[in-house]
Amino acid sequence: MDVYETIISKRDTRAYLDRPIPEDSLRRILNAGRMAGSSKNSQPCRFIVMRDREAIARLAKAGDFTAPMLSAPLVVAVMLEEGWRPFDAGRAAQNMMLAAWAEGITSCPVGIQHVDEGRRAVGAPDNFEVHMVICFGYPQPGVPLGRGQMRRPLDEIVHMERW
Amino acid sequence: MDVYETIISKRDTRAYLDRPIPEDSLRRILNAGRMAGSSKNSQPCRFIVMRDREAIARLAKAGDFTAPMLSAPLVVAVMLEEGWRPFDAGRAAQNMMLAAWAEGITSCPVGIQHVDEGRRAVGAPDNFEVHMVICFGYPQPGVPLGRGQMRRPLDEIVHMERW
Repeated sequence: MDVYETIISKRDTRAYLDRPIPEDSLRRILNAGRMAGSSKNSQPCRFIVMRDREAIARLAKAGDFTAPMLSAPLVVAVMLEEGWRPFDAGRAAQNMMLAAWAEGITSCPVGIQHVDEGRRAVGAPDNFEVHMVICFGYPQPGVPLGRGQMRRPLDEIVHMERW
Repeated sequence: MDVYETIISKRDTRAYLDRPIPEDSLRRILNAGRMAGSSKNSQPCRFIVMRDREAIARLAKAGDFTAPMLSAPLVVAVMLEEGWRPFDAGRAAQNMMLAAWAEGITSCPVGIQHVDEGRRAVGAPDNFEVHMVICFGYPQPGVPLGRGQMRRPLDEIVHMERW
């Protein structure tokens, strides 16, 4: 798949095979996140790599819709430093998810609604929050990627010169 | 370039050739943004394609460090709907910037600090803001991509299992 095909075929997927992510794939995923640009080169993200089922279950309790975490062979908590842009966390996460998808590894972001509880679950300092958790895993054969949700057509979301 | 190489070689670049972006590249860039996943499939972004110098200059006045907009042959204002995640705007923007970079088109996000002024400049409704502006253009030969800023090493930003 070329870059464009990889980008437009990526679907957030919540069901994974029980098959570990190879170490070299993990390294590329993390490095893709690391290389994302950020406002004023603030590099406001840290990544917590989680494969321990108990550690993952503990963090999952801090969110409301975290079931995908429990079956994901790899979970990466995207930590965002206070005062910096969530937009940049999105850039880093998308880099990671695309690097994974290029290798056939699918993913899904999961929110952690209870911020203090999430921070405590991973032992992070006060100036970082678990901004988003990304679940990674190989897709289950026969299970559709995504949930069949469509995107709005391009001419509905694009304006020319002004709104 | 494969997907991983495209991701890790992308540098936010502020100097552009005075050369227009082809229509088919523009369409792929916008479609890459459109196909980005979002929380609850909210699809909270709209894109305003700007090439008119006066329109761009008007919007640039609503931000503090917007000089790159004035020389970019293409500017896309990423509009975010109120109540949804800036993280998802980052995902969509990164998709667009990577689709562009795969075709040799570089880019740079620019913030619009004065929110009301930005909204007025593009004529957007109250429930959308100019969350970020992405400048696109072909890089100037001989001018380094990025500003020579380094990224922190991987082992400084990655934690295993917990912080």
